[in-house]
Amino acid sequence: MILPPIPTPFDGKGRLDTGAFQELALALEPLVDGLLIYGSNGEGVHLTPEERRLGLQALKPRKPFLVGLMEETLPQAERALEEAREAGAFALLATPPRYYHASLGEGLLRYYEALAERMPLFLYHVPQNTRVDLPLSAVAALGQHPKILGIKDSSGEMLRLAFYQARLKDFRVFTGHAPTFLAALALGAEGGILAAANLAPRAYKALLTHFQQGRLAEAQALQRRLYPLGDLLSRGGVPLLKQALRHLGLPAGYPRPPYPQESPFFGELLPVLDSLKEEGWIL
Amino acid sequence: MILPPIPTPFDGKGRLDTGAFQELALALEPLVDGLLIYGSNGEGVHLTPEERRLGLQALKPRKPFLVGLMEETLPQAERALEEAREAGAFALLATPPRYYHASLGEGLLRYYEALAERMPLFLYHVPQNTRVDLPLSAVAALGQHPKILGIKDSSGEMLRLAFYQARLKDFRVFTGHAPTFLAALALGAEGGILAAANLAPRAYKALLTHFQQGRLAEAQALQRRLYPLGDLLSRGGVPLLKQALRHLGLPAGYPRPPYPQESPFFGELLPVLDSLKEEGWIL
Amino acid sequence: MILPPIPTPFDGKGRLDTGAFQELALALEPLVDGLLIYGSNGEGVHLTPEERRLGLQALKPRKPFLVGLMEETLPQAERALEEAREAGAFALLATPPRYYHASLGEGLLRYYEALAERMPLFLYHVPQNTRVDLPLSAVAALGQHPKILGIKDSSGEMLRLAFYQARLKDFRVFTGHAPTFLAALALGAEGGILAAANLAPRAYKALLTHFQQGRLAEAQALQRRLYPLGDLLSRGGVPLLKQALRHLGLPAGYPRPPYPQESPFFGELLPVLDSLKEEGWIL
Amino acid sequence: MILPPIPTPFDGKGRLDTGAFQELALALEPLVDGLLIYGSNGEGVHLTPEERRLGLQALKPRKPFLVGLMEETLPQAERALEEAREAGAFALLATPPRYYHASLGEGLLRYYEALAERMPLFLYHVPQNTRVDLPLSAVAALGQHPKILGIKDSSGEMLRLAFYQARLKDFRVFTGHAPTFLAALALGAEGGILAAANLAPRAYKALLTHFQQGRLAEAQALQRRLYPLGDLLSRGGVPLLKQALRHLGLPAGYPRPPYPQESPFFGELLPVLDSLKEEGWIL
Repeated sequence: MILPPIPTPFDGKGRLDTGAFQELALALEPLVDGLLIYGSNGEGVHLTPEERRLGLQALKPRKPFLVGLMEETLPQAERALEEAREAGAFALLATPPRYYHASLGEGLLRYYEALAERMPLFLYHVPQNTRVDLPLSAVAALGQHPKILGIKDSSGEMLRLAFYQARLKDFRVFTGHAPTFLAALALGAEGGILAAANLAPRAYKALLTHFQQGRLAEAQALQRRLYPLGDLLSRGGVPLLKQALRHLGLPAGYPRPPYPQESPFFGELLPVLDSLKEEGWIL
Repeated sequence: MILPPIPTPFDGKGRLDTGAFQELALALEPLVDGLLIYGSNGEGVHLTPEERRLGLQALKPRKPFLVGLMEETLPQAERALEEAREAGAFALLATPPRYYHASLGEGLLRYYEALAERMPLFLYHVPQNTRVDLPLSAVAALGQHPKILGIKDSSGEMLRLAFYQARLKDFRVFTGHAPTFLAALALGAEGGILAAANLAPRAYKALLTHFQQGRLAEAQALQRRLYPLGDLLSRGGVPLLKQALRHLGLPAGYPRPPYPQESPFFGELLPVLDSLKEEGWIL
Repeated sequence: MILPPIPTPFDGKGRLDTGAFQELALALEPLVDGLLIYGSNGEGVHLTPEERRLGLQALKPRKPFLVGLMEETLPQAERALEEAREAGAFALLATPPRYYHASLGEGLLRYYEALAERMPLFLYHVPQNTRVDLPLSAVAALGQHPKILGIKDSSGEMLRLAFYQARLKDFRVFTGHAPTFLAALALGAEGGILAAANLAPRAYKALLTHFQQGRLAEAQALQRRLYPLGDLLSRGGVPLLKQALRHLGLPAGYPRPPYPQESPFFGELLPVLDSLKEEGWIL
Repeated sequence: MILPPIPTPFDGKGRLDTGAFQELALALEPLVDGLLIYGSNGEGVHLTPEERRLGLQALKPRKPFLVGLMEETLPQAERALEEAREAGAFALLATPPRYYHASLGEGLLRYYEALAERMPLFLYHVPQNTRVDLPLSAVAALGQHPKILGIKDSSGEMLRLAFYQARLKDFRVFTGHAPTFLAALALGAEGGILAAANLAPRAYKALLTHFQQGRLAEAQALQRRLYPLGDLLSRGGVPLLKQALRHLGLPAGYPRPPYPQESPFFGELLPVLDSLKEEGWIL
């Protein structure tokens, strides 16, 4: 399964653009297995609670979708969870509380258990953004919970994936780290939730299929081919992803201020995009 | 100047308790030079925008106060800034945007400049919580802005304070790191905004006065004396501070769930509190 | 190709035991494709120059072997390089200078170039021990040198292996990180130089063969099976490896003082060893 | 007490220059309270055991001196310790074993205890170079040993110095971090062992004297004045220190290859040196 974390479009003045959001979803959905909304590249943390609701209501995805939840406490998470459920998300994708992480202690387990009582969820480990750890012992403990379905791990740390593969049963793993995608598959990931899949959805699906059907050489060739795309997007983040989508004519809008509208990595990305496009891999 | 970052009380179910907030402020204000609201230990990031407004309206401090602002984007910061201004804060204390920090680039400067156009502010460097850097070069550039008054630096990294002292003119520095308080003063800090000053306000004021009046031996003795308090609070964070205040009979309430109501450091803190109390230093 | 980094035996008083060294090599060599001497687990940095020479002379391996070189400057490296060449090593395995790494600058490239003028070498990236980085840009530059054959990368960071795979031609990659072995193979590593291969040499060879012959399910099953062994050894280091070998009756001796003779991880390792032994995988 | 860590001169081809070493010591000794030989900036780790002996024999300092010891195991430390004792050092300055630090465990305490049985010593915490931690709990335990006199702490982490000041009795503390010198004094350090004291010995002695005699404003003014020198040297390391000394006509020689003969920071250092020289602070 390949899911793109769909970007949330803002206009040039930083206002949420629900029309563009809808349009972007319509363009992406046919090419992928579902969506992640308000996820790693979805700027969920850049929305007020009210905007968050408006965006979700506008979207109405037709394929299965996850909703990202990056709140700090349970009372704050309440509303976002309820809206995700009403909108029909099949699960939450929830980061740990982070601002006071050092004094969270057992609260980490309590947080996920309280959410999971209300709705199925995936753990979300994305230390590049949250800058906190989700210890393997906590993942192992939470993995026992019937409503905690698995994890999206964007760290790119394969030691973690080796642990999930060797130690956890019936635990679904998605990688969020495109440059090491094939390594994650070898260590048991079932798919990817990848920013790069907003741009080259069919390429990542092809890589996954090659791997699943034992065509290792083809999978390795495509991994090599896609490495620059995944690597650049993991360094350029939201500004680069949105700029690339705009360049391709998609209504991805701009990052919210003060984030820059243009990325210093775009010059490096252009030839990568162009050559992948020539081979038919872009959108 | 010694300011405590006043905690924001929640009741046992995690609801904001504005009455307790008011009461707590009344108890602390007479002992200090002012307050920091929604700061390092004020759980500003644990409030919805609406709660944030309610708390601030309830408080009505009589001494000068700062308001913490830990938002991710300018549109989100708008409302908090406006409310701080209306409430009469003399300045904001603003952390950098953090979730997508790696792609922020020049947006860091743009963020602070846009805020400072509207209201005087202090930069807020608290990497223990934000987990992002505020580079010295950015501090130096922003320090030129007439409405950027200075910085609260909670990192405890004295190399940064040595830089401010040697390189910046008319730049006000407060430390937020109690265990190294006297070192910060030696390197030019004018005071402290210290969680520990919620518990031992007069002791920190005395230390500051000893230093200012050249009584170095007395300052060193008090620094040694207060080290365990500052060190434990910097490790125990909000749960420990609130538990200590409750223990002393103050209406500090509880951390917001899933943060634990009791701290693993409290056992270690008790004898420290008791012996400081015997000497008359607690509240 | 699977190579174990053979441990260097010291007796209970910390004296180099060349007889045991010889015996240990004789026991291991038939089971593997060659040896790494004075490598990651070989305590090369624990020998005086004179001891280093004595050990190497005693060993006389019959299979191809690499010699580790962890010196700080070129004049110091001179003697070790000469002895490795005389002993018949097919290449050096050289870490970067580390004590003053921050001021090394272009000296990093100069170091490897000067060594490579004299003898073929592999770069050695083992940040767990050296605690310095070997930047990808430096690897790419050095990879052009005809006598720099490749790299042993023990970091376990798959992003690095993805880079080697996508960007470098004719560059041989060995992983030194057993817990992620299969991921490294998927990203183009040709084999492993693994502490765990001192204990389960045939198991790692079998995993490699499964992978090379497209038996992915078998490779994944063995990867899962071997994960605990690799993971524990990467945490327990030399004391654990030597204790495990002694437990199996091999003359691995003890770590040099003040390193402990027994590892806190041995209790956890025992059942892992036992169950792998039952399946016929140990030595 | 102000001690410079005297650099060890190598000629343009990387050979130890004992004549220059002697000459350099003669030039520095009259200006300082003693010397640190083979310390942080002394490239002790760049010498073979034989060279180490030759250098030490050539030096014959007349003032009290410390000898740095950066070995990995006790058997390796044996010879260096013996030679330091014979040469008349008043104490060793010893870093922890580092290459296999993660599996050192209690060996850390055993190492220092075994050395201290033979000769008085100071602990040496210089994580910029060793890249290992010397935990505060270990310092506290070792501080009880009658032959372990104190610590040189070059980390610049004032939290450590606050701990020493508050928790350890009769424990002598020297800072090795020039840019925060005054902060260290405020937290109880008795002096400095500073690379910058090779260049501006009298300035650091003056700063120390101002502080000791309660002239805080003068101490702060000199701290501000010396900050750029200390900061640049801490970033430029040995290549910069030697280049600066050569520029001043002192026979400091060159760093050992592959370390660069010239520092990228020298351009920035020149005006700092010049203006301090005008004020009479350089040598």
